[in-house]
Amino acid sequence: MERVCVIGAGTIGSLLAAHLAGVCEVWVLTRRPEHAAALEREGLRVTGKSELLARLHATSDPAELPPFDLGVFAVKANELEHAAARLAGRAAEATLMTIQNGLGAEEVVARHGGWPLISAVTFMSGNRHSDVHVEYELDTATWLGPWAGTATPYARVQAVAQLIVSSGLRAEPMEDLLPAQWSKLIFNCAINGVAALTGLPHVALFAQEGPAPALGPLVRGLIDEGKTIAAGAGIELYEDPWEMNVLAVARGETDHSDYAHLPSMLEDVLAQRPTEIDFIAGALVRQAELHGVAAPLTQAVHRLVKAKEVSFGSRRPHPQAAAAGVSA
Amino acid sequence: MERVCVIGAGTIGSLLAAHLAGVCEVWVLTRRPEHAAALEREGLRVTGKSELLARLHATSDPAELPPFDLGVFAVKANELEHAAARLAGRAAEATLMTIQNGLGAEEVVARHGGWPLISAVTFMSGNRHSDVHVEYELDTATWLGPWAGTATPYARVQAVAQLIVSSGLRAEPMEDLLPAQWSKLIFNCAINGVAALTGLPHVALFAQEGPAPALGPLVRGLIDEGKTIAAGAGIELYEDPWEMNVLAVARGETDHSDYAHLPSMLEDVLAQRPTEIDFIAGALVRQAELHGVAAPLTQAVHRLVKAKEVSFGSRRPHPQAAAAGVSA
Repeated sequence: MERVCVIGAGTIGSLLAAHLAGVCEVWVLTRRPEHAAALEREGLRVTGKSELLARLHATSDPAELPPFDLGVFAVKANELEHAAARLAGRAAEATLMTIQNGLGAEEVVARHGGWPLISAVTFMSGNRHSDVHVEYELDTATWLGPWAGTATPYARVQAVAQLIVSSGLRAEPMEDLLPAQWSKLIFNCAINGVAALTGLPHVALFAQEGPAPALGPLVRGLIDEGKTIAAGAGIELYEDPWEMNVLAVARGETDHSDYAHLPSMLEDVLAQRPTEIDFIAGALVRQAELHGVAAPLTQAVHRLVKAKEVSFGSRRPHPQAAAAGVSA
Repeated sequence: MERVCVIGAGTIGSLLAAHLAGVCEVWVLTRRPEHAAALEREGLRVTGKSELLARLHATSDPAELPPFDLGVFAVKANELEHAAARLAGRAAEATLMTIQNGLGAEEVVARHGGWPLISAVTFMSGNRHSDVHVEYELDTATWLGPWAGTATPYARVQAVAQLIVSSGLRAEPMEDLLPAQWSKLIFNCAINGVAALTGLPHVALFAQEGPAPALGPLVRGLIDEGKTIAAGAGIELYEDPWEMNVLAVARGETDHSDYAHLPSMLEDVLAQRPTEIDFIAGALVRQAELHGVAAPLTQAVHRLVKAKEVSFGSRRPHPQAAAAGVSA
């Protein structure tokens, strides 16, 4: 792979683009022209777990993109439809990779072209300081696998994983990503949902038993529903989402610098932006209905967060929104 | 009854004190000395459904209160312990009335003295503009009944109801208040809980069926749990809380001036104050445990709102908090 295009330069897109620029030619497709101009002019700086200044190409006009071998959609799930439409009819030779939270990203992209698709989930995290500076915080892996819908060859997935690893990030190819994708989905539904509704970052309360305000029994209830839905869908989970919760909280307690407490859905709520809830709790609710499984708590979280989005219309942003990118 | 003491002059306390001052001597016990001084100096103005300027006595020092016949605790449920303690050893001849949301207020007062107690719930609402000006918005009734724990004579309850009615407010005595108290409890748990978590006032979404963000199925689920808990406790409800929800929303849609959309628990959340959730959802959860009834949604609301209170510690108040007293 000689040329990669990263679509979207938020935290994850910036981390991928900057690292990959060390091992191949990288183009970034941005939404804002001034963002692309700044990246072309100043490059992209990474601090934290990596320290580098990447030189890369950027444009906000898809027509300016040269042909590329790999495209990575690094936009929020609810911006993916628009991003995929911008690539329709282009990059015929490319393999495209989705890396969104939740379920359904691959189907969205597939509606806009016949590219072979790679599914991915990432556990790395960062803190975007500006258009040209991202901090690399949590250097955990990105997992990737072939999407069954396009029968993408596994060798292609392995090559992409190898490219990412060679760039200094962690990646792991899997023949079947669904078990890992669902583990993260169930974890995200509980942690992001509860964080968005309580305003609390992912703290020890999320794993604590006992009377309210301990949140352990509620988080466990959500996760148990998710496991039942996964079983109904015939998915065997890769990791136990409850253990992921316990470990993440323990990591946060022992090493504050290493764990990004602030779930992205709470960031969205504080900034009064639309959240990814339809792709997370909403996706689980749809799967529950499809497989005839009861999911009252997951439905409650979905309806509450969707209704919370409705409340944004009439409000000014929360004063903490400006600091929402900073770990609490 | 010749002398009444109203403890607390928030919205409900101000409405009661100002009206009752037209038919008997009224004393108001406040928390802040400057609040008492302003009431003594300027009186208490009511606008809206009533228009009057009441002359009354006020003090922040319980030792200054003369003996009285009726005392009304018009403080939030979570301030009642402190308010009742201030009357301990005083007003030996008085009948005391609780009017808090939720369950358990009578038990709190009974721990501080042997006064005969009257239980009450109120549906009137207002908008407190200042220490000396309250707007009377919704002129619905206050219901009152003898508390079984002190075997208060029903004739006493009837006399108090008559006094309130003669002052220009609506009141209705009931031989058994529990059915009405529980109807309001179950209504409040669903409406206040969902409003506090979503940030939405009590709008049409709360009664709408259909996919998210419609909240009808969730509100109905909470109310159904409440009904099951009431049945387990042997309570026959006075009104169907779901019908209360539908009617309140319809009233709000047709007559914006007449329905206070903003539930008090959402006011508390916007002002980042402790809420009454322990006396509402918490009370239902305790009753569910007592009677062996499952209440997963009510437990979820209780834990989420309690955890939301924890989040207040680290935040500045929401900019809308200043406007929280104003109906949306």
